Amino acid sequence: MRLSQAFQPTLKEVPAEAQIMSHRLMLRAGLIRQTASGIYTWLPAGLRVLRNIAQIVREEQDGVGAQEVLMPTLQSAELWKRSGRYDAYGPEMLRIQDRQKRELLYGPTNEEVVTDLFGSTVKSYRELPKTLYHIQWKFRDEIRPRFGVMRGREFYMKDAYSFDASYEGAVSSYYRMMLSYLRIFRRLGIKAVPTAADTGPIGGDLSHEFQVLAPTGESEVFYDSRWDEIDWDKEDLDGNRPEDLKKLQDLVSTTYSATDEKHDTAAWEQVPQERQASGRGIEVGHIFYFGTKYTEAMGVEVSGADGAAFHPHMGSYGVGVSRLVGAIIEASHDDNGIIWPESIAPYRAAILNLRSGDDTCDALCERFYQCAPDDILYDDRSERAGVKFNDADLLGHPWQIIIGPRGAKNGMVELKERATGERFELSVDEALKKLGLA
Amino acid sequence: MRLSQAFQPTLKEVPAEAQIMSHRLMLRAGLIRQTASGIYTWLPAGLRVLRNIAQIVREEQDGVGAQEVLMPTLQSAELWKRSGRYDAYGPEMLRIQDRQKRELLYGPTNEEVVTDLFGSTVKSYRELPKTLYHIQWKFRDEIRPRFGVMRGREFYMKDAYSFDASYEGAVSSYYRMMLSYLRIFRRLGIKAVPTAADTGPIGGDLSHEFQVLAPTGESEVFYDSRWDEIDWDKEDLDGNRPEDLKKLQDLVSTTYSATDEKHDTAAWEQVPQERQASGRGIEVGHIFYFGTKYTEAMGVEVSGADGAAFHPHMGSYGVGVSRLVGAIIEASHDDNGIIWPESIAPYRAAILNLRSGDDTCDALCERFYQCAPDDILYDDRSERAGVKFNDADLLGHPWQIIIGPRGAKNGMVELKERATGERFELSVDEALKKLGLA
Repeated sequence: MRLSQAFQPTLKEVPAEAQIMSHRLMLRAGLIRQTASGIYTWLPAGLRVLRNIAQIVREEQDGVGAQEVLMPTLQSAELWKRSGRYDAYGPEMLRIQDRQKRELLYGPTNEEVVTDLFGSTVKSYRELPKTLYHIQWKFRDEIRPRFGVMRGREFYMKDAYSFDASYEGAVSSYYRMMLSYLRIFRRLGIKAVPTAADTGPIGGDLSHEFQVLAPTGESEVFYDSRWDEIDWDKEDLDGNRPEDLKKLQDLVSTTYSATDEKHDTAAWEQVPQERQASGRGIEVGHIFYFGTKYTEAMGVEVSGADGAAFHPHMGSYGVGVSRLVGAIIEASHDDNGIIWPESIAPYRAAILNLRSGDDTCDALCERFYQCAPDDILYDDRSERAGVKFNDADLLGHPWQIIIGPRGAKNGMVELKERATGERFELSVDEALKKLGLA
Repeated sequence: MRLSQAFQPTLKEVPAEAQIMSHRLMLRAGLIRQTASGIYTWLPAGLRVLRNIAQIVREEQDGVGAQEVLMPTLQSAELWKRSGRYDAYGPEMLRIQDRQKRELLYGPTNEEVVTDLFGSTVKSYRELPKTLYHIQWKFRDEIRPRFGVMRGREFYMKDAYSFDASYEGAVSSYYRMMLSYLRIFRRLGIKAVPTAADTGPIGGDLSHEFQVLAPTGESEVFYDSRWDEIDWDKEDLDGNRPEDLKKLQDLVSTTYSATDEKHDTAAWEQVPQERQASGRGIEVGHIFYFGTKYTEAMGVEVSGADGAAFHPHMGSYGVGVSRLVGAIIEASHDDNGIIWPESIAPYRAAILNLRSGDDTCDALCERFYQCAPDDILYDDRSERAGVKFNDADLLGHPWQIIIGPRGAKNGMVELKERATGERFELSVDEALKKLGLA
């Protein structure tokens, strides 16, 4: 995309209510604009990031056998009356009446819809296990929306739901999903640590939150640094092999992690000192086993091997896709702007033409641009070099391809790696090769 | 995907309220399930079609320089009061009150939001023209939702909005968008004809609907068969060249098409008899120039070359993405089920293993399946051959790869092309080649 034509409005002055860094940077860099309290329009660069994250989530969910559906945003209140949650759910639920005076609601979560869908389609234990997921807009009527997309009202979320014939099966589904989540966060280029969470009346230990480590996180996280070191892509764990899931389960139970709320100093002291790590955490995911709570309440049964009907065991698994955009910026920025991990950057590189209009510069820029016009933002504006440097740093492209008249004449360009600030003076061919464009 | 594991529930008996063929087939084939009146969940196969259509629309919108954003589903009533439409819009608008008693609504269309967004970001004529689009869920509270996704309440739609400095610029944007639409429908594998539509108080001739030709269409369409013949991908028309847009404009004005409402028998008789074609049409798109209606009402101005502020000219351009799924089925099915155009089929092929459990059959099926597991539905169930034939015809995969014990022993498979019913007895290598898998 050529910046002279792009809908890529940056902001000089940020509204005072944008208190945290990610909110300020998302407004300044032109990723989002607010349209109503806690409700945002995603501008092209922001939407690209949102879609890149969603696609990684999708691939890793598919990778463990979860199947994608799409449930609607509006739900019938009827279903929530069947589960008993309609009256229990507080004022965060947006309740709606249609022209026929029927009660609808904007889904804040989808246990009811998916349980009903499952009940109307799956009849036999032979069809289990099944895990369904979708990536859909949801609404929670926060009393005080703030922090931009981190605590908005309309938000984009991946939620998955597993159905199993037994508790043991549900435990496998749970750890299969944990494996998927660990791979998702690894691919997103951020550090995320699973920490034990409340299980409430369900009991047991099958509830974990995933904390992205960032200085502005809402809770303190204590963890064994092995969590940082394991490359879940390279780990040879197959979500379809029960023994691999058992291995993961053992690893989770023997590798310390906890938020301050649940911190256990005695267990912590067992972690070798050189592996004791800590940081602030932003919750971006939650996985949870809740047994037969909804299948019982909603009367959903399937027939077992012995012919007798039973209520399947369920778990639910969420990732805050729009929240992640904010969380990743909190985890990855500096004073000059955003530093995107390569896997989700809106553009892999920016070309900074330091003298637009100069034939040599223009031709060389064009040569780079044509290698990947969808994946490069070409700053072809007739602005001063300083403006271009600042905007590229603000937008946070992993690479800047800096082309000025002196270098261009000699067939040289400068590459700057945003994350490290490192600069490389290279010939055109070397630069193309380094960027993977040749 | 292996059918034994897929969430792919077919239905034997279809609810009586499903009157039209596409609705019946979408339920029977397991593409959608209703969750509330006029509100549907998209099951995996249906979602794949929906996403394939959206992706083609996206590529062709990007192809003419439109830029993708994502506006929220919920909008502030405030914006609609500024445009004057809040009270004028009828009971099809779903009006909502949040916990703070602020008025929201579920967007039925986005002129207000996009005009406000434009006004807050674009300040100078130098930034024009600009066309923004998004693909988002919308809601219209139909009094009598019916025909499945063809007239649902929550529906998925691409809507684009152009902003130009002058009427002449707006005409270019209009025909650029028409070119994009003609390419979209061509790639979707359906016949679609643009027909002149009402322009209301705006006047002029810049309003066209796009009619998919299908026997169950709501209106009669009379058209010059040149509309069927032109391959818009091959036509060397560049949306950035004004002379090409003029060529398209001339072509539109000299190539007859009209719905019965606007049929002009005198003009019709000028069309050579061998080119007089007609059929029933389902409206799936609408493009419309409406001038400065919203920019004036909402006080949106940009500064001109002479320094004076002016109201940009706008047009809006819609494609009913979820509606298209139904419309395409109406246009492309037979007594046995759906016939998907290749470009949007949920799976390109099905493998029918006529003897699951037989080593030779299983191995050969596996060989085909591993070539493209994401794009092939492998019927590995232990069902009778007849059941597999019926389900494959119902689901409408462009190709069936039929593997039985006798052929398999001799390294032969049968390919069936769904659209023509043609069958090919081929060696494994020939079959792989014909399917583009080798």
